[in-house]
Amino acid sequence: MRIDVLTLFPEMCEGVFGTSILGKARDKGIVSLNAVNFRDFSGNKHNTVDDTPYGGGGGMVLKPDPIFAAVEHLLSPLPAEEVKPRIILMCPQGKTYTQKIAEELAQEQHLIFICGHYEGYDERIREHLVTDELSIGDYVLTGGELPAMTVIDSIVRLQPGALGNETSAVSDSFSTGLLEYPHYTRPAEFRGWKVPDMLLSGHHANIDVWRREQALQRTLERRPDLLETAELTPKDKQILERLKGSRS
Amino acid sequence: MRIDVLTLFPEMCEGVFGTSILGKARDKGIVSLNAVNFRDFSGNKHNTVDDTPYGGGGGMVLKPDPIFAAVEHLLSPLPAEEVKPRIILMCPQGKTYTQKIAEELAQEQHLIFICGHYEGYDERIREHLVTDELSIGDYVLTGGELPAMTVIDSIVRLQPGALGNETSAVSDSFSTGLLEYPHYTRPAEFRGWKVPDMLLSGHHANIDVWRREQALQRTLERRPDLLETAELTPKDKQILERLKGSRS
Repeated sequence: MRIDVLTLFPEMCEGVFGTSILGKARDKGIVSLNAVNFRDFSGNKHNTVDDTPYGGGGGMVLKPDPIFAAVEHLLSPLPAEEVKPRIILMCPQGKTYTQKIAEELAQEQHLIFICGHYEGYDERIREHLVTDELSIGDYVLTGGELPAMTVIDSIVRLQPGALGNETSAVSDSFSTGLLEYPHYTRPAEFRGWKVPDMLLSGHHANIDVWRREQALQRTLERRPDLLETAELTPKDKQILERLKGSRS
Repeated sequence: MRIDVLTLFPEMCEGVFGTSILGKARDKGIVSLNAVNFRDFSGNKHNTVDDTPYGGGGGMVLKPDPIFAAVEHLLSPLPAEEVKPRIILMCPQGKTYTQKIAEELAQEQHLIFICGHYEGYDERIREHLVTDELSIGDYVLTGGELPAMTVIDSIVRLQPGALGNETSAVSDSFSTGLLEYPHYTRPAEFRGWKVPDMLLSGHHANIDVWRREQALQRTLERRPDLLETAELTPKDKQILERLKGSRS
């Protein structure tokens, strides 16, 4: 898998791309991660990549030419038979990113991310260059770099071999459709706060039941919206009815 | 404003904290940004910060002691009269982060972020140490560092003086309650794709009307859920009724 990130601040990406799971996935050859400065493709001697908006108003707008040129440069050495990359614009107007989109993008061979920085994009980039527009959530950021790295992190961890044994068995929130049950580790008593007796009982069938109930309860309390799409057994539904009853 | 980030990978944060708006805000003294490795507070000679979960199952769980010790170390030099910090756990089980929470956290004097990394947290951290649990969205990541940096970016840009003149006037998505209207800059024609005539007309009152209508249309098409909470004038509502009519 190949991932290119077009940015004016490639140094923001290097610390993240070189560390932990992403760094190891890169070292193992599972993914190639490249941050490309699109200022290098400005095509003008002042290296200008932005300009004032037509129609007036504050702020600056990223020009179309450098971004088209940078993408075309990345595509030019590809053999014609190669699968076309997804070209993803990170922006607040994009589709809200979810684990389902992560699983879909994880199947691709090549992704190109375009990151603006405290500026708007010329609309022609949106209309004629990109294949996807994504937003990681409803909050305002100074640029697309943190969102792009967030999306990349979620995609790379899904690549075979990217997670070591120590991590792959963790039952993740969202991938099961429910929030995770509570975890406890040593010490069994910390400052007077004890681990629930159930977890020390050694009775694994009971522990599984307790954990499922805890996951259902936490999801009901914190994110009841997730229950609408979670895969629930008839037993889960019974438990939820009981929990709802005891709350009212 | 002071922000501390507890992490096992402080090197992930340095490139981000030193660059662009965050880097400038730090240089100007608007915010102090510190990444602290909580492995330094393990309290054992093998520097262990995690252990297997009680009750069995895969994965590792972050122990309570190093994280309590690291937080208490950060708090110990504070004068007693100082406002208590918000202690924020980044986790998928947290409240979904929004611009409204950004605006609230931007008022605080001191924030401490706790970032796990491909592991669970001992529940006692959640119950007895943190004041807030936040999630930036419904997707699975390898750690809390990118989410913490995302939240920090959104908070620091709201501090007075953090954004330069070139950016502060941009009308942001979410802060107006609507998605942004399309932006265009030079060239007026790029590869045959022209800037809308309206924006070249010089008639600013008409341009304002066009932009508002474009913002309403884009929000209606892409994120109709935002219209439920956006501040809409009677004129906006008329425009929306017309747009809905022409779609059906």
